[in-house]
Amino acid sequence: MADARMNRQVLLVSRPQSEASVDNFRLVETPLPPLEDGQVRVRNHFLSLDPYMRGRMNDTKSYAPPQPLDEVMIGGTAGEVIESRNPAFKAGDRVVGMFGWQEYGTSDGSGLRVVDTTHVPLSAYLGAAGMPGVTAWYGLNGIIEPKAGETVVVSAASGAVGSVVGQLAKAAGCRAVGIAGGEEKCRYVVETLGFDACVDYKAGRLYDDLKAAVPDGVDGYFENVGGEVLDAVFARMNAFGRIAVCGMISGYDGKPLPMKAPALILSQRLKVQGFIVSEHMDVWPRALKELGEGIASGKLKYRESIAQGIENAPQAFLGLLRGKNFGKQLVKLV
Amino acid sequence: MADARMNRQVLLVSRPQSEASVDNFRLVETPLPPLEDGQVRVRNHFLSLDPYMRGRMNDTKSYAPPQPLDEVMIGGTAGEVIESRNPAFKAGDRVVGMFGWQEYGTSDGSGLRVVDTTHVPLSAYLGAAGMPGVTAWYGLNGIIEPKAGETVVVSAASGAVGSVVGQLAKAAGCRAVGIAGGEEKCRYVVETLGFDACVDYKAGRLYDDLKAAVPDGVDGYFENVGGEVLDAVFARMNAFGRIAVCGMISGYDGKPLPMKAPALILSQRLKVQGFIVSEHMDVWPRALKELGEGIASGKLKYRESIAQGIENAPQAFLGLLRGKNFGKQLVKLV
Repeated sequence: MADARMNRQVLLVSRPQSEASVDNFRLVETPLPPLEDGQVRVRNHFLSLDPYMRGRMNDTKSYAPPQPLDEVMIGGTAGEVIESRNPAFKAGDRVVGMFGWQEYGTSDGSGLRVVDTTHVPLSAYLGAAGMPGVTAWYGLNGIIEPKAGETVVVSAASGAVGSVVGQLAKAAGCRAVGIAGGEEKCRYVVETLGFDACVDYKAGRLYDDLKAAVPDGVDGYFENVGGEVLDAVFARMNAFGRIAVCGMISGYDGKPLPMKAPALILSQRLKVQGFIVSEHMDVWPRALKELGEGIASGKLKYRESIAQGIENAPQAFLGLLRGKNFGKQLVKLV
Repeated sequence: MADARMNRQVLLVSRPQSEASVDNFRLVETPLPPLEDGQVRVRNHFLSLDPYMRGRMNDTKSYAPPQPLDEVMIGGTAGEVIESRNPAFKAGDRVVGMFGWQEYGTSDGSGLRVVDTTHVPLSAYLGAAGMPGVTAWYGLNGIIEPKAGETVVVSAASGAVGSVVGQLAKAAGCRAVGIAGGEEKCRYVVETLGFDACVDYKAGRLYDDLKAAVPDGVDGYFENVGGEVLDAVFARMNAFGRIAVCGMISGYDGKPLPMKAPALILSQRLKVQGFIVSEHMDVWPRALKELGEGIASGKLKYRESIAQGIENAPQAFLGLLRGKNFGKQLVKLV
């Protein structure tokens, strides 16, 4: 074998009983086999860390099969083709794929997409110009369907998805109100992202602060969190309000997460709808185009938290689950 | 005054602290004033009793203003025109209106509808051929949108709304499963109404019995009840299931009614939507036509619980709230 290069990978080796921990993961080194005909090899530059990964660690019935044990942890990646025996790719191509938590990816090209980094940075294709951005776009346009003058609230507002939701809502002529953890994040949401207001749920006055931030009630809510945040927003929903349920990160460790007052669904005639962005592939081209244009023009703003080195991926992921990230959480691999 | 006839009326005189009681109502006698030009007078034959009335007794924010104290209790009525000084009506016309809990109604004709009792009995216009029927029709066709081969579940299945939901679902090619209280109601739901199965929630094995009755899971759920019934059905919902929230009678007395596992909205990508049938007047003509044809042909079956005399309306209403009725609850006034 001419190619003796080693590939560092992170495997899921056990499932959390409640909270996930670094012990659920293991770093291994695997020699890279020579490329076969039709294959392409990518040096991953960035690994995307996303809340949905916590769900995959569990062995419970959900929309996706669980992540198998002792295999490379699932995840989106962005990198550069370093070797190709596939005519659709050439060395130097910037590509986005789902190679998971490892430094190199090898594939037959399926699921790999060449991206243009002239005006949009490579890392953004894992954030505002990628899956999280499309998630925001679909939940807002496909479920909430905001009308100018309405109030749209989003939780985890400084995150990869929430930050896009609020900016798109503003662009649609809505009052955009974020919910985020801590003064610094809230300041960023208002001053940099341009939301009309942001409620710091860590300040201990969630309901009162939210009530003050939505004087005309809430018409659309983009839910990333669940639990008491959902209960608080629910209580301020206007008649015919729409709630797009994208995530319930506060329940991912398995603790019960009841909804306090579901009767409001009736009395306010709400529509509450869950969605998974990968099931709406028809909107991706349009959404990606709009999001890419927004980023290229500088109108759509985003922020990244970047951990360095594959060996730090587990710790960075656990931080994401606890809200320690500020913006899109990435791991830089080169 | 030539007309010394007395009108017996039931007023709401106090609001329930928790459970409603007969003390919240008072029977009064009021002399009927002579008809004015443009007015029409109706002898009500039937008063409709419906779960929504419990909500109107409370002084809380809801989709409709509360029933004012010391006024005639709200309610749908069906009767006969006995005197008319309005060219749109003549004595003998059978009419449906919202005269409330009283023996006679006087109006300028607005909100009064002449009905044809040749093939559809007058009382049915307060049930399967009226508001409850249209409620079933809209929740099923407007929100659940059932496809042949799917499974549709409805709670309060022997009631005025639930009985129509299941029969329409069957006609649409679905497996129809009811939830009702007691063996007798369940037998009626299956043997007379033609549902595929019915779960007796009073038997104490709600979840297991439901699971057995829906071997392919639940695609559509028509909710009249809330609470543990909702939790049980929720846990059996299939991906992309639709829940039409029409009522949550188990919470009408004000006790907290949390939803156990709202995270299923996300993991199963559910749509949960509340509705009030009076906000969808556009579907009424089509729905009433279909329902009337079903009743006239004998295909659409229904059952009535009939209390006798306006003085017994409060007791009959309290019975309805406790599930003591069997089918559409009416009060016969003549």
